[in-house]
Amino acid sequence: MIEQVDIKQEQIIEVALKRFSHFGVSKTTMNEIADDLSFSKALLYYYFPDKTTLVLKVIEHIFYDFINKQNSILAGQTSLKLALSSLIDLKIEFGKKYFMLHMNDGQTDHYLTDARFRSLLDKTKEEELNILFKLFSRFKSLGLIKDIDCKDTAQIFIDVLTGLWVFEVHINLKTLIPTEEQFLSIKTKYEKLITIFYDGIIAR
Amino acid sequence: MIEQVDIKQEQIIEVALKRFSHFGVSKTTMNEIADDLSFSKALLYYYFPDKTTLVLKVIEHIFYDFINKQNSILAGQTSLKLALSSLIDLKIEFGKKYFMLHMNDGQTDHYLTDARFRSLLDKTKEEELNILFKLFSRFKSLGLIKDIDCKDTAQIFIDVLTGLWVFEVHINLKTLIPTEEQFLSIKTKYEKLITIFYDGIIAR
Repeated sequence: MIEQVDIKQEQIIEVALKRFSHFGVSKTTMNEIADDLSFSKALLYYYFPDKTTLVLKVIEHIFYDFINKQNSILAGQTSLKLALSSLIDLKIEFGKKYFMLHMNDGQTDHYLTDARFRSLLDKTKEEELNILFKLFSRFKSLGLIKDIDCKDTAQIFIDVLTGLWVFEVHINLKTLIPTEEQFLSIKTKYEKLITIFYDGIIAR
Repeated sequence: MIEQVDIKQEQIIEVALKRFSHFGVSKTTMNEIADDLSFSKALLYYYFPDKTTLVLKVIEHIFYDFINKQNSILAGQTSLKLALSSLIDLKIEFGKKYFMLHMNDGQTDHYLTDARFRSLLDKTKEEELNILFKLFSRFKSLGLIKDIDCKDTAQIFIDVLTGLWVFEVHINLKTLIPTEEQFLSIKTKYEKLITIFYDGIIAR
């Protein structure tokens, strides 16, 4: 029975994730999700008593996926430059895929003000910081990077990437959804930035 | 007579600049500006036919001031690190002083959508880019920095600083007006960033 519940929940999350990613949260109704699954509304609400709870579950799903992928990208990396560049690819991939959810930028969508979302976001940011801190610490202990404060450096790295993203997407581009070329131009800026950043922390 | 006109215009701009910087554009009326100056409304409108024209003149004034200060800070600088760090101090100073005008971040205020404002902003950004480009080029020709693309590097430098500002102020802090401590924390991040940036471009 537990298993049955889990399977149904998974199905709902999967379908909701598809709709949210494509149309955004506010343009998706619980009715549409129930229809996609051929569920009754009652059945859908049995699993998720309200839309916010479902949204949070979907966001949690994306965050776990993001953190897991970061961890597996960095596990056993022997090149810091490659590690940073893979992180950037991952960030762009997630930023594009879940652009309509505006998770990173505190924009419009109502659910973003929910306290549970804030706490989930804070936990994810902490996790991300920790992953990067461990990466820098490992290369520092190998004598490959300078005698820097690894926590500070990790924080700055994350902040400038996020800042650049927010700036490009919401101020420079100001489109509803950026085009492929626009995402590519952000990626190019990211790459130039990490080249300088890498050269700035590597030991000589 | 021309001189007289210029003096009156200057007075208006000075008073408007004070009000706009403190209360923001939307919370300042033409009546208040006229009262501050003991001008009749008719006289004020004789010099500035509408509020948008006055706002643009004030913004232009700030931009010229910003560009002139940048130029004089960088003229004859023999240390790149000092030059970058002075630029950052200037950016923080202007960012704080004119915070209420939201010039840099494309936020709320109505005048920001005016085409003349866009063109003024674009010109200022181009000027700023050019100043930084010349700075990097000078140090490159002296063999003090690596064989980098100076235009690209100048652009990235400006973009990450602006991005970090926008991110910190509008997403991390989310206060109506940041406190002294919050501006100080942005400054600290800026300083850490330019240390890495500087180390990333300097020749060894």
